[in-house]
Amino acid sequence: MENIMKSLRTVLFTSFSYLIIIIFFSSLTSRNANGESGHKLWLRYIPVSNNNLLQKYRHSVQKVDINAVAPTMKVAANELKRGLDGLLSGKIPITHSVTQNGIIIVGTPKNSKLVASLHLRNELHKLGKEGYLIKNVQINQKKCIVIAANTDIGVLYGSFGFLRLLQTHQHITHLNISSSPKIEYRILDHWDNLNETVERGYAGLSLWNWANLPEYKAPRYKAYARADASIGINGEVLNNVNANPMILTKKYLKKIAVLADIFRPYGIKVYVSVPFNAPQIIGHLKTYDPLNSQVQQWWNKKANQIYHYIPDFGGFLIKANSEGQPGPLTYGRTYADGANMLAKALAPHGGIVMWRAFVYDKNSKEDRQRQSYEAFKPLDGKFDKNVLLQVKNGPIDFQPREPFNPLFGALPKTQTMMEFEITQEYMGHSHWLAYLAPMYKEALDSDTYARGKGSTVAKVIDGSLFHYQKTGIAGVANTGMDRNWTGQPFGQANWFAFGRLAWNHNLSSAEIADEWIRMTFTNDPVFVKKTKKIMLASRQIGVLCRDPIGLNDLFEQPHHWGPAPWYNRGPLEWRNTYYHRADAEGIGFDRTSTGSNAISQYFPPVARKFESLKNCPEKYLLWFHHVSWNYKMKSGRTLWQELCYKYYKGVDSVRWTQKVWESLAGKIDQQRYNHVKALLKLEDKEAIWWRNACLLYFQTFSHQPIPSKYPQPKETLKYYKHTEVVPPPKY
Amino acid sequence: MENIMKSLRTVLFTSFSYLIIIIFFSSLTSRNANGESGHKLWLRYIPVSNNNLLQKYRHSVQKVDINAVAPTMKVAANELKRGLDGLLSGKIPITHSVTQNGIIIVGTPKNSKLVASLHLRNELHKLGKEGYLIKNVQINQKKCIVIAANTDIGVLYGSFGFLRLLQTHQHITHLNISSSPKIEYRILDHWDNLNETVERGYAGLSLWNWANLPEYKAPRYKAYARADASIGINGEVLNNVNANPMILTKKYLKKIAVLADIFRPYGIKVYVSVPFNAPQIIGHLKTYDPLNSQVQQWWNKKANQIYHYIPDFGGFLIKANSEGQPGPLTYGRTYADGANMLAKALAPHGGIVMWRAFVYDKNSKEDRQRQSYEAFKPLDGKFDKNVLLQVKNGPIDFQPREPFNPLFGALPKTQTMMEFEITQEYMGHSHWLAYLAPMYKEALDSDTYARGKGSTVAKVIDGSLFHYQKTGIAGVANTGMDRNWTGQPFGQANWFAFGRLAWNHNLSSAEIADEWIRMTFTNDPVFVKKTKKIMLASRQIGVLCRDPIGLNDLFEQPHHWGPAPWYNRGPLEWRNTYYHRADAEGIGFDRTSTGSNAISQYFPPVARKFESLKNCPEKYLLWFHHVSWNYKMKSGRTLWQELCYKYYKGVDSVRWTQKVWESLAGKIDQQRYNHVKALLKLEDKEAIWWRNACLLYFQTFSHQPIPSKYPQPKETLKYYKHTEVVPPPKY
Repeated sequence: MENIMKSLRTVLFTSFSYLIIIIFFSSLTSRNANGESGHKLWLRYIPVSNNNLLQKYRHSVQKVDINAVAPTMKVAANELKRGLDGLLSGKIPITHSVTQNGIIIVGTPKNSKLVASLHLRNELHKLGKEGYLIKNVQINQKKCIVIAANTDIGVLYGSFGFLRLLQTHQHITHLNISSSPKIEYRILDHWDNLNETVERGYAGLSLWNWANLPEYKAPRYKAYARADASIGINGEVLNNVNANPMILTKKYLKKIAVLADIFRPYGIKVYVSVPFNAPQIIGHLKTYDPLNSQVQQWWNKKANQIYHYIPDFGGFLIKANSEGQPGPLTYGRTYADGANMLAKALAPHGGIVMWRAFVYDKNSKEDRQRQSYEAFKPLDGKFDKNVLLQVKNGPIDFQPREPFNPLFGALPKTQTMMEFEITQEYMGHSHWLAYLAPMYKEALDSDTYARGKGSTVAKVIDGSLFHYQKTGIAGVANTGMDRNWTGQPFGQANWFAFGRLAWNHNLSSAEIADEWIRMTFTNDPVFVKKTKKIMLASRQIGVLCRDPIGLNDLFEQPHHWGPAPWYNRGPLEWRNTYYHRADAEGIGFDRTSTGSNAISQYFPPVARKFESLKNCPEKYLLWFHHVSWNYKMKSGRTLWQELCYKYYKGVDSVRWTQKVWESLAGKIDQQRYNHVKALLKLEDKEAIWWRNACLLYFQTFSHQPIPSKYPQPKETLKYYKHTEVVPPPKY
Repeated sequence: MENIMKSLRTVLFTSFSYLIIIIFFSSLTSRNANGESGHKLWLRYIPVSNNNLLQKYRHSVQKVDINAVAPTMKVAANELKRGLDGLLSGKIPITHSVTQNGIIIVGTPKNSKLVASLHLRNELHKLGKEGYLIKNVQINQKKCIVIAANTDIGVLYGSFGFLRLLQTHQHITHLNISSSPKIEYRILDHWDNLNETVERGYAGLSLWNWANLPEYKAPRYKAYARADASIGINGEVLNNVNANPMILTKKYLKKIAVLADIFRPYGIKVYVSVPFNAPQIIGHLKTYDPLNSQVQQWWNKKANQIYHYIPDFGGFLIKANSEGQPGPLTYGRTYADGANMLAKALAPHGGIVMWRAFVYDKNSKEDRQRQSYEAFKPLDGKFDKNVLLQVKNGPIDFQPREPFNPLFGALPKTQTMMEFEITQEYMGHSHWLAYLAPMYKEALDSDTYARGKGSTVAKVIDGSLFHYQKTGIAGVANTGMDRNWTGQPFGQANWFAFGRLAWNHNLSSAEIADEWIRMTFTNDPVFVKKTKKIMLASRQIGVLCRDPIGLNDLFEQPHHWGPAPWYNRGPLEWRNTYYHRADAEGIGFDRTSTGSNAISQYFPPVARKFESLKNCPEKYLLWFHHVSWNYKMKSGRTLWQELCYKYYKGVDSVRWTQKVWESLAGKIDQQRYNHVKALLKLEDKEAIWWRNACLLYFQTFSHQPIPSKYPQPKETLKYYKHTEVVPPPKY
């Protein structure tokens, strides 16, 4: 009788438990149906919706064997627990033996005897210090999956990688994944000021609550580190490149140390932006000349002090002699003199200097595009080993479309790293749905021809072309205090894509979008397919709406929101008229040999293509050529007609995006659906604003009508020039 | 057999359901044990923890009878559902008949036949358009509770009031509550700029995402309206008193209309701050002279336009001829001329003008304290019926402690409303635990003697003293985009207390703290008792740490964070030395008849007390008197010794607060506990900074030592004057 009762109790208890779990989760998901804030990003870990697959996963994933002692291993164990419990709607226990199928074995040969027993040395050897492998193995004739790496952080990356497989509904019975990052330094640059505003930030104030550090460790610091680690980010530059020297004071170092401590288990190092004149401003020296021994001494001591507080401090990012920032040129020294001084201070501690190549003289008569190349090309080979030159993808400034920066490929002896912009400074701030992976890929896949065909920018920055010892990639972050981190829900995709590409630039934009959509929204095939379509189109739509055919720098100042092609105040190179050069004849910047000859900075096969009016890709046409309004485009339209066509197509494409999105109603939670829907309406309004303002303005040069088949602007150019400009979203 | 099975199924199902509910909620609460962000404020509705009480509540509250058709009634029904389901851990259904005990009958005589049947006309008549009653009644011999009001908004207030009873564990078997607001206009002033920064805001950016309005209706708008309605707030001034005229453009009116639509069901009207020169800036008139008919016309038209978009628009708040803002004085007109012009534009639509009395000439030789009174006293009776004069509680500017503003009581024919500051501009921003109800009460309870003894400030502003037709109270909001709304978790208490006092200024600080603690944290008696103790002490601690004995305006500029008693740059009345007047003789501002004679602005019984060195309350001593360093205080200490004593006591009191708080570990969720704990550490650091900086500075005048029994400052005055001042938290 007792046994019967026991059985009954067990049965009852089990049914109870199941029911409870189901109801609990269905209640959670029904909550979700009403609204998700987006705060969970791509790490939602909701139950696998495909029941077949769920059963298979449950079969393959029953327990986890992990030695969760070291801090990073603890993080990995927690993540697996959280992820698997969520995805499989159950409790996946930790085990320390393999007596059944479905054990996930997680660790390094050092911290896991099981992993060591698998003889993975050769495979692991190839993976370096951050790579991981995931494969199906048999242990004691039991079917298991191993997530192995050489280091704890590799294990964490592998754990996130494994969870991603389940989140995206991949099969996990024939796994043989080896993955390691192609680039060593994968960094987010935060243009965050110490007063917590963010330059070019459109998602609220800074994540760093400097005023309350070091006392208060806000929960978001850990949440942020976790999100970054999940996509392989391993560094954070904490402050704006227009840097406040106070970041280097003891008071701030103590604050930074707290962040570094929180980030450490996630494999993330902290870096700071420094102003070159810090020795003068906070060190009270009379000079900041990099060849002055007192100045050098000051930096050496400062580095010692920094490493006292933060033993694994990453290094410095610096913007020098650029847009008003101090630098070595002030003393007639070179950028290399400046960089190497800092590098020597950091070298004993293992730190690096990221020296930004974004320099130009705003009053120079020299084509701005030429200046950065002219400044750094002669210095090739003059930089210390722990210096990386940080180069923006294009030669001007993060425009919606730029040809690649000719510095890529030009510096075989200078470790050249990439600087992308994730925050949508020129892509509609946090209003626009603009998936930027295609922009990043366009740059990475550009062929520099530096060592003949196939010398892509990607191969420059991953070090394979010139055998750089150190490689790096940086993205200007788009995160802030907004509950969903990025304002526009699709902004999360750019953060995600940057991390995924920094890890593996061979991934396609579509693959990354596919992952992100599934993890962030749903695996519903219709939703995935359609959303991917609008994402992949979105960057080009942004270009069409703002600056098609190679136009650029048409933005209102200083906020870079909305159109102002007429803007012609201030220094030469801050005027928009400087860039588009529209006149009665035509429009565009002649950078061929008859013009500024900036094209000559590219290797000959590239230069030849750009130089030729006929062969130059039309997407770059007005970037490189001043072209007659009546020039016949490949479409058969004249340039003016083509310009009209593109701007109108831009608005139409935004409308198409809206339509596609609205066809997806009900497939995801209302809150995010409505948010995107509302922002697309705003996008539509802004696209019309751009189209009308630009065409009405350029029409004053072309003296040609907007073809009558298009709906004509209702307002005049004067209206657009003088309309009550809404203040930009932030600062 | 079938019946048996049915019973079994029912039993099983019921047990299942119970278990499920219990587990679901315990899982929720265990989540909560780890951390609550504070986002839910005082509306958490967690299950009643006292099981006895829970059973009693379940007995008395079984179903709700409500006619949830009108928008505000829907809100009330949803709130009751959410609240009761949460508090009682179950599903409380809606019913439309009384066939059992435990029905909550909710409505007005117009929308509920049951309410109408209760013959409450006489009782309801006294409650006005916003009041409510809650009482136990018998219907069909069933025990019920009625929540009744004359209007839907009264019902909503009553619903929140009823939920508050349960949240604070009150008995509900002998209810006979009648409640109606003592003040008509209960308004939060948002000093929010259109670029989303907040002047004197310390909890992140503005709640209003202007850039994405009207398209995007962020969920927080509704959440905010709900929170405000729960404490009886019925108006929001949306923008900074240092106003951008663009708020009055059509573009912005459309945005405002969206907010107004969202707020309307919560009984909340929107108001805007206007700059007096708007007709010139956005209307392109040549003048903004209030007696110019074109200007008047412009405002009339503008008002028409506003009401076209927002039919129940509340009105204008205005800061004129104050700190650089334009105003009628520019044209030799009076404040009344200005206010009445605006009032006439709004009157046909039912709007009001709140004209701020905060005016002073920063270069005047006249004691700043005197200026506002001198400016407005002669205008008494000159303002239109829909004008309220908005007067800060003290005569200077929201200092931690000020005597009451002599304008209260001085204007029997001018509707005088109160302006309190909720945001902690001078009380440690969002770092300090500073419960401000005692400060509000101190002002409200001050006796003006305007109509003899008992003529309190509260009676002035609730209209009872002078029979004002319109009454108002405004608080400068402390909310922002921080997840917990206010940064410092205890900041929520000030928002709450302001609302509660605006509704009923007879509530004591302790009663309000008691409610807030129970609703926000827990009903645990030890936690409630101890937390109330530190809350009630906290404002006085803030005074001790910064400006004891009637000192004031010792703050660093422009951010008002940290001490700078030495500050003496800029216009006379912006210098801190102007206020404390420390010299070799003594310290303090002589406002007696031998000095500025500002005291004469008070009614004789008050003036006599302040004038007398002996009778003047020591808390105001240096506010009204210049006192010798060796003056004997009531404690027997000299003034200098007393000053030292107070500053040291301030730091000790912060330490005491820390100790009390730390004794409460484990009684609430870790996240909020840790947050407060960390902030108290920061508070300790800042209190020491204040103490040392002020004493070392004043010592240069007193030439007396800090008594040796106290730990001596480790740093010098020079250090404090030149220490790397951390940038203020925001802007």
